[in-house]
Amino acid sequence: MNTKVNTQALASLFDGIETVTQSDRLAKISEDYFRFSPILTTLLEGKRGDIGLLPESEVEIIQIAKICVQQRLPITVRGSGTGNYGQAVPLQGGVILDLSKMQKIKWLKPGAVCAEAGIKLAALDREAQAIGWELRMVPSTVRTATIGGFIAGGSAGIGSILYGQLRDRGNLRAVRVVSLEDQPQVIELRGDQVQKVNHAYGTNGIITSLELPLAPAYAWAECVVAFADFRIACEFGQALGESDGIIKKMISVHQHPIPTFFAAIRAFIPSQSDCVLVLVQESDLEAFSALVQQFNGEVCYQKSAEEAKKGASLVEYSWNHTTLHARNADSNWTYLQSLFPSLDSVQEMSDYFGDEILIHLEFVRINGKVSPTAIQLVRFTTAERMAEIIKIHEDRGVAIANPHTYILEEGGMKAINHSQLEFKRQVDPYGLMNPGKMSSWEENLIPKN
Amino acid sequence: MNTKVNTQALASLFDGIETVTQSDRLAKISEDYFRFSPILTTLLEGKRGDIGLLPESEVEIIQIAKICVQQRLPITVRGSGTGNYGQAVPLQGGVILDLSKMQKIKWLKPGAVCAEAGIKLAALDREAQAIGWELRMVPSTVRTATIGGFIAGGSAGIGSILYGQLRDRGNLRAVRVVSLEDQPQVIELRGDQVQKVNHAYGTNGIITSLELPLAPAYAWAECVVAFADFRIACEFGQALGESDGIIKKMISVHQHPIPTFFAAIRAFIPSQSDCVLVLVQESDLEAFSALVQQFNGEVCYQKSAEEAKKGASLVEYSWNHTTLHARNADSNWTYLQSLFPSLDSVQEMSDYFGDEILIHLEFVRINGKVSPTAIQLVRFTTAERMAEIIKIHEDRGVAIANPHTYILEEGGMKAINHSQLEFKRQVDPYGLMNPGKMSSWEENLIPKN
Repeated sequence: MNTKVNTQALASLFDGIETVTQSDRLAKISEDYFRFSPILTTLLEGKRGDIGLLPESEVEIIQIAKICVQQRLPITVRGSGTGNYGQAVPLQGGVILDLSKMQKIKWLKPGAVCAEAGIKLAALDREAQAIGWELRMVPSTVRTATIGGFIAGGSAGIGSILYGQLRDRGNLRAVRVVSLEDQPQVIELRGDQVQKVNHAYGTNGIITSLELPLAPAYAWAECVVAFADFRIACEFGQALGESDGIIKKMISVHQHPIPTFFAAIRAFIPSQSDCVLVLVQESDLEAFSALVQQFNGEVCYQKSAEEAKKGASLVEYSWNHTTLHARNADSNWTYLQSLFPSLDSVQEMSDYFGDEILIHLEFVRINGKVSPTAIQLVRFTTAERMAEIIKIHEDRGVAIANPHTYILEEGGMKAINHSQLEFKRQVDPYGLMNPGKMSSWEENLIPKN
Repeated sequence: MNTKVNTQALASLFDGIETVTQSDRLAKISEDYFRFSPILTTLLEGKRGDIGLLPESEVEIIQIAKICVQQRLPITVRGSGTGNYGQAVPLQGGVILDLSKMQKIKWLKPGAVCAEAGIKLAALDREAQAIGWELRMVPSTVRTATIGGFIAGGSAGIGSILYGQLRDRGNLRAVRVVSLEDQPQVIELRGDQVQKVNHAYGTNGIITSLELPLAPAYAWAECVVAFADFRIACEFGQALGESDGIIKKMISVHQHPIPTFFAAIRAFIPSQSDCVLVLVQESDLEAFSALVQQFNGEVCYQKSAEEAKKGASLVEYSWNHTTLHARNADSNWTYLQSLFPSLDSVQEMSDYFGDEILIHLEFVRINGKVSPTAIQLVRFTTAERMAEIIKIHEDRGVAIANPHTYILEEGGMKAINHSQLEFKRQVDPYGLMNPGKMSSWEENLIPKN
């Protein structure tokens, strides 16, 4: 579909469904935040869908699926496009299926919620909070990202220090998926079955709704703690993570000069300081302060849970928002995603790369262990140097989830996910869904028709 | 005071305060559950206070403190006497200060509660649950034990898999203490200062009230999972502990034939099975079942959170209630308390001791790590053999908190707690409080007037 397409003819196929045919709007919904990566920018710039569709119901999605199969139209599903790996960019044109009108909450009760894929996380969180609960984890893009996009493209977030990864059992309870068969089916996956589509970039079925666990809604105070020594800031982060009597939702560590990129809060942070951004249960602040004191930190910014509801949240300086702020200061910054085996390893890589890399840690629980993951900033020069940097890390035991690829298997898990591939064989026999993203499929193409 | 005492003369000193002078009642309130240890039984049997006092307010406690100082009367503070280390047994007679009438809740709000020391944990928990919260951790004796006794003599409990140890920052927020000075003072300790009296057996000040954090009250379902292989039962426990997406409050592992000691539930447990007793968030049961299946376990008993409110809770088969049930079956069973460095170490000790020891694990978080602590059953022969068993464990890297001593420093921490000793110097200059229990004091006696 990369050749010239008659958009009007295409639109006429999807009778009764809201379409996007205007060129600039089509360009906009064909993108995500891949520009954080200069490498992906080269690969993905200018890729466009041929038509955008905005269904309002699962029934309309089934209708769309049927037509796409009949016409062998590629289909790329998206939410708000806040992902960074080009997972929402159509490599072969076709239909952009924008689910942002699918916003209904089907039900909500203590401990769980079921909602359509296109609802924004902040909206969902607000409704949950009204009954005393909240989402277990959210990305730093919580205000704009959709729940479907987070599950299809995310892996962890703010809250992961309490509840682990999205892939952990219990963190995604069920999904409804529309298949791309000749007769599209609605398939409900529950329990371990959800892993068939969890973090699969929308390559194997259209997720229409999801059932998620909720966490009790704590009153989260927000603090910035400044440190004169980066290693001690890291050790404080680890100790806070392992302080079982202090409930926290975010521990985000930033090596100097990263705090200078945070325009709206940098005035509060002592110059030359490293800092740790924390969301902590308000009533644990006394114990938290004692821990800060033990590590010779200084709380230089603090908002009560009530105050934190107004204005920018520290959440918007964490995870990949850090990279956004760095790029606003200097667009040569890009990033890597890592899991360090220890703080010694963090130190080793920081010493090794000097100014080329600035360390930004997000402490999360991985299989029960408080672990220093990183979204470190990398001063970009060439793709070759980036490959070299990755290799140097991997040679020293640092696991890298490469964000400079749009290929599912080259990102986080570095392995073919046979259950996802198998499920794609079942629900997308013609290989129409987000073609080019699941390499294990592309390399084992079964006859298309 | 071990010589014949004129009880009536003593009683007359404490005008207006409810006293216990009747011999059998006095005997009863001079005991705790030290009989779990044959060694402590030999040492402590027959130790009696000379008078029991049941104050109803802090004002009365100050009055009592003043008289005890004037008269140089030893004073042993107690709650319900559910401890197992003789910490509530008076070694030198004197006053038994029974705080069970001090039951007021001073205030209760989301996330925290402040209550008098003598309130029963179950009563406190019930009030907290009425506003959607609960205690972060409770002992298996929750129905009878008091909050003051739990803090003065306990260390962890059901809930420690989520919130760690009582000694962890944040798990005890403040205490009010009455001193035994010539002019008794009321001292409020907050933050890190609380460690001066936390787990000090009431040797350094009379705790009158406490401020504790609360946890969100989950709906806890109760399950027994049976396994055909003990090692796999242990591995399941560890994996459940490390499953960040499954919220659980208790993981209690019992080697066969321990389940046969559980009269009221053994009929549900397949014979010859090892089993794991679990409290898990009801809405996580689907994910929990998937984990059970992965480890080839069998859920042989399950109660919904609603059903679990009625009848005996699985809580009453966990922690040292396990020992109670074992001793009901055969009074030769006693116990040890251990922290194993790994499941391999659990296996090694189990293989080494054969039938002499039956392994009972309680998984808890220690400094953020899910750890196999044990309250293993030991078939008692002699004190010498017990010492040998402890040494064999310690030589192989297993930490033992010896429950067969009433000496504070010989139990869990194996070290002089200088902050507690220093605080005793301040608040109990005449050494009247629970004399004989803090050895670092006894060995460095400062002149008693």
